[in-house]
Amino acid sequence: MDRKLKIVIVGGVAAGPKTGARIQRLFPQADITLIEKGKFLSYAGCGLPYYVSGVVKEQKELMSTPVGVVRDSVFFQNVKNIHVLNRTEALKIEPLKKQVVVKSLLDGLEKTLPYDKLVLATGSRPVVPPIEGIRLRNIFTLQRMEDAEGIKILLSEEQAKNVVIVGGGLIGIEMTEALVQKGCQVTVVEKFPQILSILDWEMAQFVSSYLESKGVKIRVSTTVQAFKGKDHIESVQTDRGELPCDMVIFAIGVRPNTTLAVEAGLSIGPTGAIKVDGTMRTSDPDIYAVGDCVESTNLLTGEACFIPLGSTANKHGRVAANNICGQNDIFPGVLGSAICKVFDFAVARTGLGEEQARKSGFDVVTILTPAPDKAHYYPSAKLLMMKMIVDRKSRKLLGLQVVGPGAADKRIDVAATAISAGMTIDQISHLDLCYAPPYSPAMDNLITAADIARNKLDGLFESLTPMEVKKKIDNSDDFIFLDVRSPAEHQETSIDKAILIPLGTLRERWMELPKGKEIVTFCKISLRGYEAACILKANGFKNVKVMDGGLLMWPYEIKRSGK
Amino acid sequence: MDRKLKIVIVGGVAAGPKTGARIQRLFPQADITLIEKGKFLSYAGCGLPYYVSGVVKEQKELMSTPVGVVRDSVFFQNVKNIHVLNRTEALKIEPLKKQVVVKSLLDGLEKTLPYDKLVLATGSRPVVPPIEGIRLRNIFTLQRMEDAEGIKILLSEEQAKNVVIVGGGLIGIEMTEALVQKGCQVTVVEKFPQILSILDWEMAQFVSSYLESKGVKIRVSTTVQAFKGKDHIESVQTDRGELPCDMVIFAIGVRPNTTLAVEAGLSIGPTGAIKVDGTMRTSDPDIYAVGDCVESTNLLTGEACFIPLGSTANKHGRVAANNICGQNDIFPGVLGSAICKVFDFAVARTGLGEEQARKSGFDVVTILTPAPDKAHYYPSAKLLMMKMIVDRKSRKLLGLQVVGPGAADKRIDVAATAISAGMTIDQISHLDLCYAPPYSPAMDNLITAADIARNKLDGLFESLTPMEVKKKIDNSDDFIFLDVRSPAEHQETSIDKAILIPLGTLRERWMELPKGKEIVTFCKISLRGYEAACILKANGFKNVKVMDGGLLMWPYEIKRSGK
Repeated sequence: MDRKLKIVIVGGVAAGPKTGARIQRLFPQADITLIEKGKFLSYAGCGLPYYVSGVVKEQKELMSTPVGVVRDSVFFQNVKNIHVLNRTEALKIEPLKKQVVVKSLLDGLEKTLPYDKLVLATGSRPVVPPIEGIRLRNIFTLQRMEDAEGIKILLSEEQAKNVVIVGGGLIGIEMTEALVQKGCQVTVVEKFPQILSILDWEMAQFVSSYLESKGVKIRVSTTVQAFKGKDHIESVQTDRGELPCDMVIFAIGVRPNTTLAVEAGLSIGPTGAIKVDGTMRTSDPDIYAVGDCVESTNLLTGEACFIPLGSTANKHGRVAANNICGQNDIFPGVLGSAICKVFDFAVARTGLGEEQARKSGFDVVTILTPAPDKAHYYPSAKLLMMKMIVDRKSRKLLGLQVVGPGAADKRIDVAATAISAGMTIDQISHLDLCYAPPYSPAMDNLITAADIARNKLDGLFESLTPMEVKKKIDNSDDFIFLDVRSPAEHQETSIDKAILIPLGTLRERWMELPKGKEIVTFCKISLRGYEAACILKANGFKNVKVMDGGLLMWPYEIKRSGK
Repeated sequence: MDRKLKIVIVGGVAAGPKTGARIQRLFPQADITLIEKGKFLSYAGCGLPYYVSGVVKEQKELMSTPVGVVRDSVFFQNVKNIHVLNRTEALKIEPLKKQVVVKSLLDGLEKTLPYDKLVLATGSRPVVPPIEGIRLRNIFTLQRMEDAEGIKILLSEEQAKNVVIVGGGLIGIEMTEALVQKGCQVTVVEKFPQILSILDWEMAQFVSSYLESKGVKIRVSTTVQAFKGKDHIESVQTDRGELPCDMVIFAIGVRPNTTLAVEAGLSIGPTGAIKVDGTMRTSDPDIYAVGDCVESTNLLTGEACFIPLGSTANKHGRVAANNICGQNDIFPGVLGSAICKVFDFAVARTGLGEEQARKSGFDVVTILTPAPDKAHYYPSAKLLMMKMIVDRKSRKLLGLQVVGPGAADKRIDVAATAISAGMTIDQISHLDLCYAPPYSPAMDNLITAADIARNKLDGLFESLTPMEVKKKIDNSDDFIFLDVRSPAEHQETSIDKAILIPLGTLRERWMELPKGKEIVTFCKISLRGYEAACILKANGFKNVKVMDGGLLMWPYEIKRSGK
């Protein structure tokens, strides 16, 4: 390879520096220049909510290596041998001349940088539509360090007590937690009927209820019409009324920064992000693109998707560098794996959601399982509510969603690995996952879910989702909703319309039930519900179903005793 | 299937009840009898150390369902429709007559139970060799509830202050933690040169050092010769001196209970456990065996292995029941996944260890990576020390070992899934694991380890293990041991013989080093060590190697400054 290989990288936050560092290691003679518009380099944007909340104490921590060295221009020059031009904007790419025109934001001087290979790591920016009043003071987006600093100043001056967060996605919800922790009253406004569109509706419901238990107000199916105030924000006007506030976090999503790419004539994909092949190369063979400005392929559907994440950005950087340096490497795509901390809950998903899977043509079977994440007698065991999505035909795992205080990330990562490998639920059922009481139940939650899925696919029981049961109740359908828990449990919490016959008495009392009617059984998690269905079927009942997930996964109102 | 199908199950702790419950659900007309020698049924034996330590408060918790119902004979009869004979011993199987002779331990009465299918879930028992004094009082094994109660009584009477644990395996180490928590001075005696044979030597060293930091004395390569005392234990005599004590926990391993099977002429495998096929059927087509009394197949080597675990027992039970009821199901085998809590450390492994892999004919490459388990700036991030074992030829992951305070179980379970799927390190490198700062670094530890493995296999750097470097030092080999950390880090902790040239100055100072000599670089984790090697190679040095894992994975003495 040419000893003077010139590499220009546009973008200095995550994927850009990663690409540069890897190229330098693979090809030390490369002449690498990194262009960054902002002041800060290689900072952990994903850490900003935790810097706002004070969990991360200092700005510097987000910009340092694990041993505490700040990744500034001097660091990049001395340690990584990368020449950094920060406070410098890339104005245009001239692909035919293989050069980039840049302008210093400090002195306004322009210069032209020739390249052999160009890497675009231009990132994304928050979507900010031209809503009336959007330029009022104290309306923030959260992407740059400067955004976090602005929010922190208001918080420290106690000028932000009442906050409206527009957008109930990952960033909106992370900021909700951060601001509640700082003592703010937070209202989340979401235009769709649920927050956290990464989850299916019923799973998002559990997060909503949990947020409400923390004092957060959730306004779904609500559209912002205007921001009101003289100088700074005073209220948010929505189609469902006005919300007084003194700060707004605007977090309805991000868009890839593609201006440079578009003007250079590079192909843009269906998602609006830069189109790249598996080597991270754009439509110009000498231009690569990485990180939040490019689209990925969904590994299950083969469709283009735009899911900007720091984890993906780092992988992109490595793959692009490998290919630039002649090491073949192909980035296969993503599963849409995502996780978010919501107070003591983890909220996570991978693969396809139920609707997404149906739209992609799969014959979908879903499983709801609530269970402790460790041996149930181990004191730190915590609840995990899981939804598994399986393809009936191939018996392959398609997706997993987990919500709750337990170790959700572990189950999601195992599921992501299993989906990547094309594993069936039968294979998952037999996985040799590590077991000791402080870490998992003897049958891990994922194995239990796979076993329930196998039972369903093998026709061992029929089931209804809580949503299907709710519809029956709302329609006043003539069916028996049979709670088989203990009288004590039934006394404490119950669902309207359900009658009680404890499982331990069902072998003697089944004759109390009419054989002609549809019976839907449930318990706390629906294991006893399943056993009850087996008993009834053994005694000649034909129309018996189990409600998926039991009481713990009932996303509607539950009657609670006065206790 | 015959409406009167008679099932007899011998063994009521884990795999037996699981098999029975599953058969009942699949085939409600079955007539199921469960024989158990002890008083207690279906209890969580794995929870006993936590009951001894008081983390689990009540005996009852280990014998209850998640909703608090004690799994006694009445429970099994009413809820599971399984007839239980506890305090009953199975004396012999008469395979030709298809019957089992049992004896009540309460009244001594014998009876004969006919079966259509017999399930042996006879479990295992602690190995207790005929060492002099082994019958002295206050020498315990730990398997049954009664053992735990006996230990707890001594503890409550403060008669066990000085405890010797014979055997540094999983149970021995779990009991070490439990007894230290109860205020005992604990000495672990292990006949092999390391504790925790589930780990490779250097990984076990980190656990040993950690245990020593908790005040535990570790005596490896030490054999017990006799137990001394008049009535109760007073000291343990070893080939390396006498250890005074007032309690001994004997935990050198377990052996499968095969007497019934052997006497019935069933095939026994090379490990001494009952041989079964993938359906869990023994050499007699009407006799199945499950749980701790059977051997499994190692999924990577195809060899028989004896690894009794509650997680495996539950899977066995389901597979046996499925096959007995005509649902095809095959238990594929195990990876030897295991995990153990050691105070604030998790100690875990899956797949093959380094030596085990070499013996099985793999061309082994190992990787050592220490890293925080979450974004390094996130306050709850904790260190994970990982060893990855890879096959050079196929590039497949063979094994993973993890030690440290971080979330080891997550990485082990992902690795176990990847190994089961036959994934290469290239595939692992691209896994879409879920990422947010409270859960993982942007590049998960496992992905980083896979990337280092790829670098090694692709010839991007040469490395030496800490053990290889130590040997060079001990042999006074003529080489340069180059620490490239900062002066402050070097001042705080260092390795004897290492010289310092910080990475940030190496591009200017490399000429200080002689080109003819072998140079071995390292830093805290060996990322900077790797970059230093790249710089040196770019400047014409030919013989440069990186020490795997850096200072954090150096299993020998480290010099610490007075601070």
